[in-house]
Amino acid sequence: MANLPKATLSVLISLTLLSFFPATLSFPRLRSSRFLGKFSSFNNKGSLGAPPYRYETRYFDQNLDHFSFSDLPKFRQRYLINTEHWAGPDQLGPIFFYCGNEGDIEWFAANTGFVWEFAPRFRAMVIFPEHRYYGESMPYGSHEEAYKNASTLAHLTAEQALADFAVLITELKKNLSAQACPVVLFGGSYGGMLAAWMRLKYPHIAIGALASSAPILQFEDIVPPGTFYDIVSNGFRRESISCFNTIKDSWDVIESEGQKSNGLANLTETFRFCKKLESTDDLSNWLSDAYSYLAMANYPYPADFLMPLPGNPIKEVCRKIDNSPNGTSILQRIFEGVSVYYNYTGNAGCFNLDDDPHGMNGWNWQACTEMVMPTSSSRNTSMFPPYDYNYTSEEQWCLENYHVKPRPTWITTEFGGHGFKKALETFGSNIIFSNGLLDPWSGGSVLEDISETIVALVTEKGAHHLDLRSATTGDPDWLVEQRAAEVKLIKGWLDKYHGRKRTAFDM
Amino acid sequence: MANLPKATLSVLISLTLLSFFPATLSFPRLRSSRFLGKFSSFNNKGSLGAPPYRYETRYFDQNLDHFSFSDLPKFRQRYLINTEHWAGPDQLGPIFFYCGNEGDIEWFAANTGFVWEFAPRFRAMVIFPEHRYYGESMPYGSHEEAYKNASTLAHLTAEQALADFAVLITELKKNLSAQACPVVLFGGSYGGMLAAWMRLKYPHIAIGALASSAPILQFEDIVPPGTFYDIVSNGFRRESISCFNTIKDSWDVIESEGQKSNGLANLTETFRFCKKLESTDDLSNWLSDAYSYLAMANYPYPADFLMPLPGNPIKEVCRKIDNSPNGTSILQRIFEGVSVYYNYTGNAGCFNLDDDPHGMNGWNWQACTEMVMPTSSSRNTSMFPPYDYNYTSEEQWCLENYHVKPRPTWITTEFGGHGFKKALETFGSNIIFSNGLLDPWSGGSVLEDISETIVALVTEKGAHHLDLRSATTGDPDWLVEQRAAEVKLIKGWLDKYHGRKRTAFDM
Repeated sequence: MANLPKATLSVLISLTLLSFFPATLSFPRLRSSRFLGKFSSFNNKGSLGAPPYRYETRYFDQNLDHFSFSDLPKFRQRYLINTEHWAGPDQLGPIFFYCGNEGDIEWFAANTGFVWEFAPRFRAMVIFPEHRYYGESMPYGSHEEAYKNASTLAHLTAEQALADFAVLITELKKNLSAQACPVVLFGGSYGGMLAAWMRLKYPHIAIGALASSAPILQFEDIVPPGTFYDIVSNGFRRESISCFNTIKDSWDVIESEGQKSNGLANLTETFRFCKKLESTDDLSNWLSDAYSYLAMANYPYPADFLMPLPGNPIKEVCRKIDNSPNGTSILQRIFEGVSVYYNYTGNAGCFNLDDDPHGMNGWNWQACTEMVMPTSSSRNTSMFPPYDYNYTSEEQWCLENYHVKPRPTWITTEFGGHGFKKALETFGSNIIFSNGLLDPWSGGSVLEDISETIVALVTEKGAHHLDLRSATTGDPDWLVEQRAAEVKLIKGWLDKYHGRKRTAFDM
Repeated sequence: MANLPKATLSVLISLTLLSFFPATLSFPRLRSSRFLGKFSSFNNKGSLGAPPYRYETRYFDQNLDHFSFSDLPKFRQRYLINTEHWAGPDQLGPIFFYCGNEGDIEWFAANTGFVWEFAPRFRAMVIFPEHRYYGESMPYGSHEEAYKNASTLAHLTAEQALADFAVLITELKKNLSAQACPVVLFGGSYGGMLAAWMRLKYPHIAIGALASSAPILQFEDIVPPGTFYDIVSNGFRRESISCFNTIKDSWDVIESEGQKSNGLANLTETFRFCKKLESTDDLSNWLSDAYSYLAMANYPYPADFLMPLPGNPIKEVCRKIDNSPNGTSILQRIFEGVSVYYNYTGNAGCFNLDDDPHGMNGWNWQACTEMVMPTSSSRNTSMFPPYDYNYTSEEQWCLENYHVKPRPTWITTEFGGHGFKKALETFGSNIIFSNGLLDPWSGGSVLEDISETIVALVTEKGAHHLDLRSATTGDPDWLVEQRAAEVKLIKGWLDKYHGRKRTAFDM
């Protein structure tokens, strides 16, 4: 089997760029590779090509530690900015501010067409700031230095990132004499969590937030730990029970095949890996990743979000799994299925496994410090190998691999979680939590209205922050309506702000 | 002149305990002693005597850095707790939580009778946690180690203190199975700022806050920098214009006296200092401190808050200044006046100046990092020596003395300030900003209602967080009414919380 041709390599590389919210895949046999966020710290410039939207790239010197006065070097935060359509300070032109997540900000800018497309209508400025420790926004001057050890990574936290955003907006507005201009926050996935938290923590800085696919309740015991994999599994079961069962049965087949003397070689051949498999865990992980990402990217139209995929890709995967000729082995069926994900273009000759799963990367660090999201796989409802969540072993893993002890209750202490609705029904305003129920992250998100102005927009057939993507001709009506509802709410915030402001000026 | 007798020493020592909000006195000639918070880091156990209220003293291990994962040692936070009257978790008994300020928590507990006196009526638990780096709550094991240098002091910030409070409450509630019990925050002065900020930043942790004398707007250019000294000055002018003028004229007299060959010796004798004055600045500072503290403690009844004082002490000071026999020199009049402050008991034989004004202390550090409150003294409206605020020289002073660079715009970025009302009129709820207009800190406080539930209670004749003190027989009607209004509002928050909670339980 030959290695991948060059064109296909870029497809695989693009997987390494996936900067959407990473699943915390954690199975006992897959311990070493449970976080997928490791992909997100790589620079994507090579594969992105020309950016689809126009912006200037600028840099801003940030304090590494906003909450203490340690004598640390500043770092350069990158941000993308477009003021072409901005109404300017005199007319209180709005500022659309995307809360950058765990990856290169240009990738998010390219995949958040919604913000770019609606900004001109609002005569809004657009800003995409990069999250510290990702892309080019590296403390200590380089990725290598920033990711050197637990001490250099210490300041990679959500609160510091939010403070970066707060300082950046405040300074930018001051420089533009735009202090009175309203800021609207946007974010998807982890960026959506940041957008919601930012509105709650910095109401004086932003008048509202659209938080798309933001699983801010995926902590501690707020939602059942099996939620994520149950939703992925349901995505397959709703297409076909036999597809679900084939996948569910496949793990034991893989396991027993692996125990045969020639087993790993056979599996390597069946799944067309470029290099020989070293363990069945690597294969199981590779498959689990595919299923999870398929669920997130289960969009109603063909898209090239993580990988080039057909519309409703899970339907396609299950079609392949179910419709193989009689006598096709279960492993061959599985291979045909995941090829929809890994090789939809048909160009891949063989497949490479992920890079070193032990490599230091941003999301792994975050998951080993603050972002402790309990994850399990239920024997009854999940098609994945069963796994009971065990905090102690997670902690052990983090101590061994990152020399850091997680603080599993910190996020809910800092941002709330338990009793979220009760706390906010008489506090706060202007947040939209948008979710598609096909998205496995929807299980940890806010799915019901909290108050009149903190609202949930839920679509039955949406997947991971689909609403933030650019409009396409393939958009179903419900998606068009969802975006229209979001625009209407944002317009309402702005009208109210401008109205009050004008009244204030009249006084 | 003999040194002070022992009994009087304790009076002077008690000044070193004053842990209410320190004035940022800053005159060009008084540069070295511009922050008074230096008193507040001393332990007051010796002078406090038996605490007037009953509580247990407990300790809690806190992370030194909540917002980063640096490998720092934990520290023991002290807190005082009383559960005698608590209704318990089943009845959702409230928790009254005082946000400890920049000093020994036992001193605040002793001077915040309001919380203790109303807790039984609400069947509330009472908790007084100590602020990090004050009292016994010392990082690195001791005051000496914690205050060693800029690096050890780095984590003395308001945000870290708020996070301490949040973690402490959350853990305490968990241990008591009291997660659903409502928390009400209290705080006076800097503690009032913390209470208001805590309600805004941690709405999921506390249902409301009584923030007394909390100058959260005393930053940057939100209020005029002359506000503080103008209010102090007005406190004297309203008693007597001649008193105001005598004080205003005295600075030049002191200055020219000091330039005479025997001047400092003469001044030392006139003001009865135990040791010879080294400069007129020391004297001016000593006098300015007295006037400022007199304004803060200008209570309507005799009290022993900072020093033993008569009711309406400024009236008494001015009576002394104005009514000295004909021919009494201006300096002698001034001395008679401030003796009301420094020696009301009449026991002092001579006076000691403050301790080393360069000594590291908590509030000085905070004022040189986050708490940058511009202060000036107007030639026209202030009775103090004129002084224009100059940030550059403040920064220079901090760099030289504490090796730290202030971040003068950080507090307003983190907590808001400009457009405070606009930001919160449709966001947040349940905060009482109480202020007395005699209090010089009222000028930087919230004096008008922000919304229906973020309200201002203003009394014309109140001084520094008078409402938080215990009830006395000398309380005027307006003070009784102010406290009743506060209790009614807090009861409203709790009733609403309990009502909603019961409804939730019924569902």
